[in-house]
Amino acid sequence: MAVRYEHIKTCKQTGARLGRLHTPHGIIETPIFMPVGTQATVKSLTPEDIKSTGAQVILSNTYHLYIRPGTEVIKKAGGLHKFMNWDMPILTDSGGYQVFSLGDLRRIEEEGVTFRSHLDGSKHFISPEDAIKIQNILGSDIIMAFDECTPYPADYQYAKKSMERTLRWAQRCKDAHTNTQNQALFGIVQGGMYDDLRVESAKETVKIGFPGYAIGGLSVGEPKELMYKALDAVVPHLPEDKARYLMGVGSIDALFEGVLRGIDMFDCVLQTRIARNGTAMTSSGKVVIKNAKYEMDFSPLDPECDCYTCKNFTKAYLRHLIKANEILGLRLLSSHNLHFTLKTMGNIRKAILEDRLADYKDEFFNKYRY
Amino acid sequence: MAVRYEHIKTCKQTGARLGRLHTPHGIIETPIFMPVGTQATVKSLTPEDIKSTGAQVILSNTYHLYIRPGTEVIKKAGGLHKFMNWDMPILTDSGGYQVFSLGDLRRIEEEGVTFRSHLDGSKHFISPEDAIKIQNILGSDIIMAFDECTPYPADYQYAKKSMERTLRWAQRCKDAHTNTQNQALFGIVQGGMYDDLRVESAKETVKIGFPGYAIGGLSVGEPKELMYKALDAVVPHLPEDKARYLMGVGSIDALFEGVLRGIDMFDCVLQTRIARNGTAMTSSGKVVIKNAKYEMDFSPLDPECDCYTCKNFTKAYLRHLIKANEILGLRLLSSHNLHFTLKTMGNIRKAILEDRLADYKDEFFNKYRY
Repeated sequence: MAVRYEHIKTCKQTGARLGRLHTPHGIIETPIFMPVGTQATVKSLTPEDIKSTGAQVILSNTYHLYIRPGTEVIKKAGGLHKFMNWDMPILTDSGGYQVFSLGDLRRIEEEGVTFRSHLDGSKHFISPEDAIKIQNILGSDIIMAFDECTPYPADYQYAKKSMERTLRWAQRCKDAHTNTQNQALFGIVQGGMYDDLRVESAKETVKIGFPGYAIGGLSVGEPKELMYKALDAVVPHLPEDKARYLMGVGSIDALFEGVLRGIDMFDCVLQTRIARNGTAMTSSGKVVIKNAKYEMDFSPLDPECDCYTCKNFTKAYLRHLIKANEILGLRLLSSHNLHFTLKTMGNIRKAILEDRLADYKDEFFNKYRY
Repeated sequence: MAVRYEHIKTCKQTGARLGRLHTPHGIIETPIFMPVGTQATVKSLTPEDIKSTGAQVILSNTYHLYIRPGTEVIKKAGGLHKFMNWDMPILTDSGGYQVFSLGDLRRIEEEGVTFRSHLDGSKHFISPEDAIKIQNILGSDIIMAFDECTPYPADYQYAKKSMERTLRWAQRCKDAHTNTQNQALFGIVQGGMYDDLRVESAKETVKIGFPGYAIGGLSVGEPKELMYKALDAVVPHLPEDKARYLMGVGSIDALFEGVLRGIDMFDCVLQTRIARNGTAMTSSGKVVIKNAKYEMDFSPLDPECDCYTCKNFTKAYLRHLIKANEILGLRLLSSHNLHFTLKTMGNIRKAILEDRLADYKDEFFNKYRY
């Protein structure tokens, strides 16, 4: 079945969208947050653990999988779903972002990007066509066009040239993608922090025509106001009947702001990364569990949370695990942070359904302290 | 209720014992292997995960808990069971072994041991009475006497003096232990590799009188033949109606040899330690999962195993996880190795019941290659 976005309703109070994304591996209720499983694993969690957080779709990274274990292994396994034993939807990025992040290790040309592996220095070349071919082998439900993630800051000329190349590559990706029945290829809007370039990128990407549109090149170091401004410029030019995905964004405030601006999908490593440093996201704000005040605190991490971690363990025990560098500690905090984020997204969906997202946002941040 | 060993039957083919150890937190079927949860966590596993491996009792380390999070935290938590949310039996060691392992950081005197924390160098003193007091606070079902683990090699005079001190400390531990209704204090037989010292230690420890007896100071670097010889010397002097625990031993061959010599309980970090290096214990022997031959091997780790890891993941995926240093990899191998060991112990119990342990051992090692 082809991936299809179904618009259910628009919040009368805010204009936020409620929808469903139909995929070959199930329906994703939107707006949604996608946990990141970079190396074919959401760090420390089994597929069952991931599902228990409320996750409906995960993201995995094409660059990392291409480098290790390699496309051939995943092909022989029968695709990424079978390889990692995850039977729900998967979105893969194109590898572009990671390759560009290699800095001195890569060279961008019109044909594609030459780069060296961050693991062994071996030389590789990926064209837009290659990125699609690899993602076709991975078999993810949603695949991404190969784009250039314009860095921040970038001057106008660079951002324009980069955005135009991303457009040409988008067309090449679309032409290369034949497995449209089982995998939806999303286009990516770029344009740096320049509203006119963002608008042009949105319009031209929509002209090429995709079953979904991502907004890339944000949350790359710019002030959040610039990110919201870019969303305000882009979203009005995206079609109502297609999913909208804000790439690499997942802080709680940005999730609210994105949804309020009409975004349907988000992903971020934040939840699991801060967990590994011992930071939990709770209904009263961030909890830095190593803090001495939790040494004898035998209450749950978040009394309002019904996740496995909060139902079974105390702050004092979690603090002990994190201080002792015990894997169980980061595992329990990772699943809690994902659960908290996905629960909040569920509440956001409910608030949209009830036309009260602005009220819910106020209630949420009344309790949530940074 | 007081801890009590119930002897069920002796294998007619071998003399191995089948029994039940009744504890305040449930019945332990013996012979049994105890997973080690050094820092109040069996590395990477939740209590539910541990139970799913077939574990009936876990071991935790008094020294580590005393150092971090500290006795006061566990006392305020209501004991170790509540602190780590484990409702089945716990055995704690006395801290002696770990303290003696500190080498230059400790000084042994008749009154007790002065040592420096391996974490921050802070100075501490633990007497036999202190070791009991700490374990009383931990609230473990089975606690161990404070002994000196005689190193290997040790000359006769040292081994004799050390064994005699352990006897005096055993009496002091027994005198200090008042919570006998809820916690069973086991004595520990020492004596190095000298049969006469081992026999004397066994007889004198039994004279003091404990609800269970451990054999310590083995698996400390000596050839396995010496360990088996020591068991042959000691076991005939231990009472039939009390549990027998071989400390720190858990390799598959030693489990068989110990049971054949009348041992009921074992513990070892081996299963989880080799898992973290990517080694799995399977019915055909050890599997070093990083080996290149598993790159495209989409069969389970052990086709005869019914654990979560083997039911859900392939060797190729596990290899990828371990090579990519992913926590999920060592978690899946840890739970598999514990499951494999505990399943084997279950088969050993069944074979004793059926008076065919020697046959089962032959069948097992016919397949199991080192």
